[in-house]
Amino acid sequence: MSTDHLVVFTPSGKRGRFPTGTPVLSAARKLGVDLDSVCGGRGICSKCQVAPAFGEFSKHGVSSREDALSDWNKVEARYDEKRGLKPGRRLGCQAEIRGDVVIDVPAESQVHRQIVRKAASARVIEMDPATRLYFVEVQEPDMHEPSGDFERLAAALKREWGIERLEADLSVMAGLQPILRKGKWQVTAALHRDHGAGAHRLTALFPGLHETGIYGLAIDLGSTTIAAHLTNLDTGEVVASSGIMNPQIRFGEDLMSRVSYSMMNEGGADEMTRAVREAIDTLALEIAKEAGIAAELIVETVFVCNPVMHHLLLGIDPVELGQAPFALATSDAMHLTARELGLDALRPTAQIYVLPCIAGHVGADAAAVALSEEPGKSDDLVLVVDVGTNAEIILGDRSRVLACSSPTGPAFEGAQISSGQRAAAGAIEAIRIDPETKEPRFRVIGCDLWSDEPGFHDAVGENGITGICGSGIIEAVAELRIAGLMDPSGLIGSPEQTGTSRSVADGRTWQYMIWDASETGGPRISVTQGDVRAIQLAKSALYAGARLLMDERGVDKVDRVVLAGAFGAHISPKHAMVLGMIPDVPLDKVTSAGNAAGTGARIALCNISARAEIERVVREITKVETAIEPRFQEHFVAANAIPHKTDPFPELRAVVDLPETGFGASSDRPAGRRRRRG
Amino acid sequence: MSTDHLVVFTPSGKRGRFPTGTPVLSAARKLGVDLDSVCGGRGICSKCQVAPAFGEFSKHGVSSREDALSDWNKVEARYDEKRGLKPGRRLGCQAEIRGDVVIDVPAESQVHRQIVRKAASARVIEMDPATRLYFVEVQEPDMHEPSGDFERLAAALKREWGIERLEADLSVMAGLQPILRKGKWQVTAALHRDHGAGAHRLTALFPGLHETGIYGLAIDLGSTTIAAHLTNLDTGEVVASSGIMNPQIRFGEDLMSRVSYSMMNEGGADEMTRAVREAIDTLALEIAKEAGIAAELIVETVFVCNPVMHHLLLGIDPVELGQAPFALATSDAMHLTARELGLDALRPTAQIYVLPCIAGHVGADAAAVALSEEPGKSDDLVLVVDVGTNAEIILGDRSRVLACSSPTGPAFEGAQISSGQRAAAGAIEAIRIDPETKEPRFRVIGCDLWSDEPGFHDAVGENGITGICGSGIIEAVAELRIAGLMDPSGLIGSPEQTGTSRSVADGRTWQYMIWDASETGGPRISVTQGDVRAIQLAKSALYAGARLLMDERGVDKVDRVVLAGAFGAHISPKHAMVLGMIPDVPLDKVTSAGNAAGTGARIALCNISARAEIERVVREITKVETAIEPRFQEHFVAANAIPHKTDPFPELRAVVDLPETGFGASSDRPAGRRRRRG
Repeated sequence: MSTDHLVVFTPSGKRGRFPTGTPVLSAARKLGVDLDSVCGGRGICSKCQVAPAFGEFSKHGVSSREDALSDWNKVEARYDEKRGLKPGRRLGCQAEIRGDVVIDVPAESQVHRQIVRKAASARVIEMDPATRLYFVEVQEPDMHEPSGDFERLAAALKREWGIERLEADLSVMAGLQPILRKGKWQVTAALHRDHGAGAHRLTALFPGLHETGIYGLAIDLGSTTIAAHLTNLDTGEVVASSGIMNPQIRFGEDLMSRVSYSMMNEGGADEMTRAVREAIDTLALEIAKEAGIAAELIVETVFVCNPVMHHLLLGIDPVELGQAPFALATSDAMHLTARELGLDALRPTAQIYVLPCIAGHVGADAAAVALSEEPGKSDDLVLVVDVGTNAEIILGDRSRVLACSSPTGPAFEGAQISSGQRAAAGAIEAIRIDPETKEPRFRVIGCDLWSDEPGFHDAVGENGITGICGSGIIEAVAELRIAGLMDPSGLIGSPEQTGTSRSVADGRTWQYMIWDASETGGPRISVTQGDVRAIQLAKSALYAGARLLMDERGVDKVDRVVLAGAFGAHISPKHAMVLGMIPDVPLDKVTSAGNAAGTGARIALCNISARAEIERVVREITKVETAIEPRFQEHFVAANAIPHKTDPFPELRAVVDLPETGFGASSDRPAGRRRRRG
Repeated sequence: MSTDHLVVFTPSGKRGRFPTGTPVLSAARKLGVDLDSVCGGRGICSKCQVAPAFGEFSKHGVSSREDALSDWNKVEARYDEKRGLKPGRRLGCQAEIRGDVVIDVPAESQVHRQIVRKAASARVIEMDPATRLYFVEVQEPDMHEPSGDFERLAAALKREWGIERLEADLSVMAGLQPILRKGKWQVTAALHRDHGAGAHRLTALFPGLHETGIYGLAIDLGSTTIAAHLTNLDTGEVVASSGIMNPQIRFGEDLMSRVSYSMMNEGGADEMTRAVREAIDTLALEIAKEAGIAAELIVETVFVCNPVMHHLLLGIDPVELGQAPFALATSDAMHLTARELGLDALRPTAQIYVLPCIAGHVGADAAAVALSEEPGKSDDLVLVVDVGTNAEIILGDRSRVLACSSPTGPAFEGAQISSGQRAAAGAIEAIRIDPETKEPRFRVIGCDLWSDEPGFHDAVGENGITGICGSGIIEAVAELRIAGLMDPSGLIGSPEQTGTSRSVADGRTWQYMIWDASETGGPRISVTQGDVRAIQLAKSALYAGARLLMDERGVDKVDRVVLAGAFGAHISPKHAMVLGMIPDVPLDKVTSAGNAAGTGARIALCNISARAEIERVVREITKVETAIEPRFQEHFVAANAIPHKTDPFPELRAVVDLPETGFGASSDRPAGRRRRRG
């Protein structure tokens, strides 16, 4: 019978027998227990903290006595004195096994700890970032063995951590010698694992034990805004989030106008590349400042973006993306450095990962949505819709995933809408119209009260209602339809047809007046016939794209719908379906994934395997190009009606009454324009 | 019995049987015959030209008939019409085998053709450069399979050339789309094989078939001069050679003064880095202009240099090299790009290879000498001495190679010599002193006549004799010794002791007057006692270094000596040995290798295996650090005498008479300085 002691680690349940004197860290490593260590067992980093549990553990068949671990040694005592250990905690590298024992590994001591995402989805992110810290002692130079300092650092990393191939940039080489000497030949190396080449790249080197952490940026580079999350690469904690307008807006509001700018202006693409890189630099500095860290501690950055932004970020002229066959210069994931991208705010060696593009119209942002929402792991057939200026649409389940992009235009974001504005304080974001009285009530951004609740006008204040944003206009059009103020073809009825004086002439058409403060010099906020047409075009494009994927997949219905995009979070499922934006499913099967592209970027930042995973998934996705599919036009025309000309939407009609009156009689048209001409 | 035809390739002698209709190129590939092709068998690059031989070849057992190859096809005829084929030549990719045949592969059609070096050494360079051209047809973009242009280029290179992993820099990516379209989806890719990682890097892309070649620079980056050879990477031909002064001279003549400059001046190292990189840019542009090529066709550059220049080139502060333990920041070979080095004259993706350093005092230049002279492949024990401001010394044979560096100072280059000057027109480069008359005769750079030959003074002209260069001063001191004008301790004798009025007082010592034009306002050129002392210090350091290596190796003598360095080519073996610069060997065993470091750079440029080879060799070299070896000082003191205090130099004495008179009697010293003081 063995005299070794039984050691059980929780929560993993891994167990094994070890002789007296085995350090807990060594036992954990032998059993493959996920226990962190940066300093390599020197008792200085405290990453390997464990909590021994004493008593009878019949579940594990262990009787764990107080003397099952060695007493504190000097190293542990010194650490506790200087930094303090939580009660009951031990340093795994110092505490030695003396008897049978149960040892708990707290979450913060796990390398691959799991981070619960804030979003509705229950999925967790497992921490396994591409860049990690390694503390090593480097041999001092010896004239008899005159190798370079870098080569001795590489040898130390190999000896202590099994790092086989170390590469370094010249800028790191140049800083190497003073750092080694400052740290008295003890240094902490930030090493980036290339998940393809199998080499490690020395991204940063710190004298001694580096304790202020390393950070990563997940950047969602949109046409309109650039959003970033700064994450501690050790804990996974998001320490700051920030956004900035994309300055390329001055070259064109939407993507195609930026492509045109490049085509029309020599050097235009370079100009836009410089602008966006400068904005990213600004954002990086701001977010580091907000988090109170030095920007040089940012060692990783992940980008997700649409194909045009992708090319402009990389310094590639997007001109080919403006015309068939929409050829990407490169579609695979990119591994770069801040120097290559010309990002001066970051250290030159900061590693950049850009997710792969799916197709010329379906970018790395869509890939990030696929990484976040994992349609390929879904048991039921899910349609994921990322609504923005361009809608990315993904349909899939375990058997197959398809993707396309559809040119919805900016109407869903409140642009090209008569009273439209961006989602900012004062914008109407939700609206209900009473089917009996035809009177509206609404809510504006910045105030939790509805407009018919007491105190609303005091809370909002003078001029506090400024326009209508994307989610507001979608709800407004849907409510017009539910209230019978607009017919299935999208025509707004006259006061006679609708029975309300809120139906007001607007040239030869009718508009529905939501808010009129013109007498006090304030705005008139209405839904015009033109607004309805713009929303119809956008929603038809979206629906037609989804239908095209369903055709390709050979199905007539999907099991559930996920609305992604910052905007997706604000769309009410009922209103989206009344409008016919998405196919008919039970309302409780429509969920919001929040900013799924941004979440995908965060996942790729925190977990290196996720990068390999999304690269594989993207290769396997069936790409559908809406521009060349003849059925797209058919689907588009049929989707013009609200909710749809031919698709019956039984799930919707089971819960919502949709009046089928038609307002087509031309005698009811107002004669406004004709009058004005007369 | 097979009906296949017997095909014999010459000069390799490789043979095999192939069915009717097999293209000659395919047969060559199957047999592993070294036959080039850039266009992949499309009949447009003509690299695969062969010369079929017809008749009876009893040696090969083949009867080769005129109809053994197919008639010219259209492709071949078109090529001949447009470009012209030499008589008897066929395109290997077009000509098909119809019968038994002998086919000669001319040198210019071999991939691994051998380039005979100009230098004395018989070694040839086998062409196998790291960067080669590949012509491919890329699939056009397809909306149904929306991969990136780069990914389709990579697929084409894999399909047609078996290239497995293709990587590219952003700057190449940015230029990709216009080039593919300009070449109508036919392009020539310059791919760089990384001999470590096994990937190929896209260095340059040209539309269509690129026919103006790609080039490489071999740069010998010296403390004083920067020399470059521009080589056609296809043919191996050196198309231009050029040199430029190292502008760092303004920060310090020798290496240690540059290290001091860096220590004393904040940003001094950066300043020197910028200076040398700018000079390299200038040199690259000049040499490209001289060769009549665009600098962007330079796709490879190899650097050899001493450790201080190495660090300054890379942008690393050399401060650690100025003090024990002389730690290099990095010693291994470096793979970089022109962008990383900040070389703006080259395309940003031009690949840079820097040879490994051997030790803190023994640089990549010494490694290049080892690559060129291959002491580790020598059957007899060879001492290779690269004489410059610092002497690099290598001792070795098949069993073991040792290396050290010795601080000779700049005396051998004519610096710190009273009449010294750089090797330029007007400098005395050779001198003989008649042992009877004690009269000198000499030759100056720029004139082939000796000074006692008719017409010399007309040829040299007024003021045509300006000073004495490194080889001149070595010869002068040795001749003084042979002529009995200077004793073994290095003391120059008085007129009475030497019997010549050319012995002239110089303070309290004597100088030997070579040339006195002071009456016409010209220079007085003499060898002073101080000059002799400077040469003694330099030669003692050199000899002591060699002896140290011999000690380490456990030998008293070497079999042969190779003098390397631009300067080595001009040193007369006899004079070097009279001076006791090098150990005693038969005079015919002292050879010059010319600029062996530069040759090593050229080899590494033209042959990728040579890079792996020298990296291996450098790891295996025994490094000896002269600064910490107590015996160095002993050897140094003993080597002060000319030729040596204790070593007998029997081989030398068998061919040269060396008078052993001593001029030590102090009464014979001139009293000049005392007089002047009085």
